[in-house]
Parts: sequence; structure tokens; C-alpha cells
Amino acid sequence: MPAQPRSGCAINAAVEVLGDNWSLIVLRDIIFGNRRHFRELLTCNDEGIASNVLASRLRKLIDEGLLTKAEAARGQRAQYTLTEAGIQTLPVMVALGTWGMTHRETSPELTIRSRTMADDPQTMADDPQLVAGLMDELRETHLGVPRPNPDEPRSSERLQAAYEAEISGS
Amino acid sequence: MPAQPRSGCAINAAVEVLGDNWSLIVLRDIIFGNRRHFRELLTCNDEGIASNVLASRLRKLIDEGLLTKAEAARGQRAQYTLTEAGIQTLPVMVALGTWGMTHRETSPELTIRSRTMADDPQTMADDPQLVAGLMDELRETHLGVPRPNPDEPRSSERLQAAYEAEISGS
Repeated sequence: MPAQPRSGCAINAAVEVLGDNWSLIVLRDIIFGNRRHFRELLTCNDEGIASNVLASRLRKLIDEGLLTKAEAARGQRAQYTLTEAGIQTLPVMVALGTWGMTHRETSPELTIRSRTMADDPQTMADDPQLVAGLMDELRETHLGVPRPNPDEPRSSERLQAAYEAEISGS
Repeated sequence: MPAQPRSGCAINAAVEVLGDNWSLIVLRDIIFGNRRHFRELLTCNDEGIASNVLASRLRKLIDEGLLTKAEAARGQRAQYTLTEAGIQTLPVMVALGTWGMTHRETSPELTIRSRTMADDPQTMADDPQLVAGLMDELRETHLGVPRPNPDEPRSSERLQAAYEAEISGS
């Protein structure tokens, strides 16, 4: 179980779980890259996470209730699954991505998704349904909960279309 | 100057600056507590930040362009001021506070402000003007930029009224 919090403040509570150099990066790769196994989380990571750091962060995220780990059958790789608390870090990612894009030099190819989601607080305010829709997709993928409006286009499809429009220069 | 980023990802860029146990806590105290001097940031901090940690985080936040430090006249204390990049961490705080309130045990007195701002993504989506208004107030206080709509009630006054209604049980 997590240790006693440093204070009763909600921001502090989140910082105690997510406030390190790697936890949000691991969650980002699971959320946006749908990487579910240790090996792909290790080898596909753009920031070059070290094996021991990845192992310790995965353990911490499980302990804190953001991930679960399915016991692997013989010869199979263990799979990591987001919990509802893990899925709900998406708005934190959106806010961080918006800040990073605005105040730091970033590579356009990697930030198009984030730019589409949250160009600035106004964009996010204009399309909160996109973030909510992505969380519904994550619930479907990770928790087996059907999307509430299966006939509507997926948020990820809308993002993909925006991405393709962007790289084709239209 | 900050070191070379680990990748071109906007989320990573933000994590490199804000992803530690204390930077966001120091910014929170400046943003919500209007604490502008070293001594009050040290002694009023609810999490018991150590003096050397506070000094190192303030230096980092200045180096990264989130704060400036006014040279103190003789006998006066140096004052810290948010930059635009520092002010724009507010949506990150809102997202973290929402997550912390939802997924961790927190003390109501300390989370009323956060609950008012961002009970869940829907609340935030319903009232993005509140967050934008708070950023306008921070620009006025820290950067001397007049609020665009001075005749409208301040977001902080609306928060205060909500807080008083909450503690009076109405």
C-alpha cells in the first residue's frame, strides 16, 4: 500500500503518484501506443528508459492502483492493463502536452496528436468530447466496457484523420 | 539553459520540467497561496519542504523560465514572480487536482478550491472560463497585465463564494 500522504491536498496526492521523471512516460506509452508488454514498453520507448527503471515504475503503478498485471500463461508474456484510475490520467497528459508544446521545442510528428487534442486551453474547452471519447476507447480496450455510443466515430479515428490531413499538408 | 530533451514529445518536455516531487508543489503555493518570498514558501508549505530542496527547485524553475526573481533592495526580501509559462501550469494543476480528488483520500478543506474548479472533466469542460479567468488574475498580479474584462467578477471571488457556501453547508 502507498505510504501516508504528505498532506491532504489533492494536487499533492497526484504529485506523489505521478510526480517523477518516468511514471507518466510509461503511462503515455500504454495509453497512446497501446504497448501492453514489458519488452515493447522497453524497446519502443523514445526516451530510452532503462530496464530497471521501467520495472520499478510498473511495480509502483500497480501498487498505486493505476495498472494491473495479468499473470502470464506458460510461454506467454505478462500483460499490463490500465485501471479506471490509470485511464483518468489522460486529462493530465493533455494538460502537460499542451504546456510542453507551447513552452518547449518539440518535434511536430510527435506532437500532432497532442496538438489536435489540446492546442491550448481553448481547444480543449471546445472539444472536451474528444478526451472523453478517448477515455471510453481505453475503457473498451483495457476494461472490456463497451463504448456508450458505438455508432459514433471513434475519437482515435478523428485524431488519425486529423493527423493524416496534417502530414499531407492540407 | 536546460539540457537537451530526451525526445521531441510534448508530454515528455513537460515531464522533464515538472515531473518531480516538489516543482509543482512550489508552483501551487505561488499560484494559489500568492506566496512570493522564500521564507513564506518554506514555512507555510503543508508538505514540509526542506530549505535546500526549496532553494534548488526555485533555481530550476527560474532556469526553465517559469519564474523570475527580482533583485532585492537592501534590507528587503527577494520576490519570485510567475512568467507566462509558469501561469500556464494552472491547467496541469487542475487536471492533477481532479485526479487526486477522485482517486486518493484528501481533506475536504484543502480540496474545495480544486473541487470547484474541476470536479471531473465535465465540470472543467462546463466552466473553462473559470480557469482562464484565474490565469488572467495571475497575469495581473505577476505580470502587471490588466484583466481583459475588469467589470466581470474575478474567478477567485467566484471560488471564494463557492468555498463559503460549501463550509456553511448550503
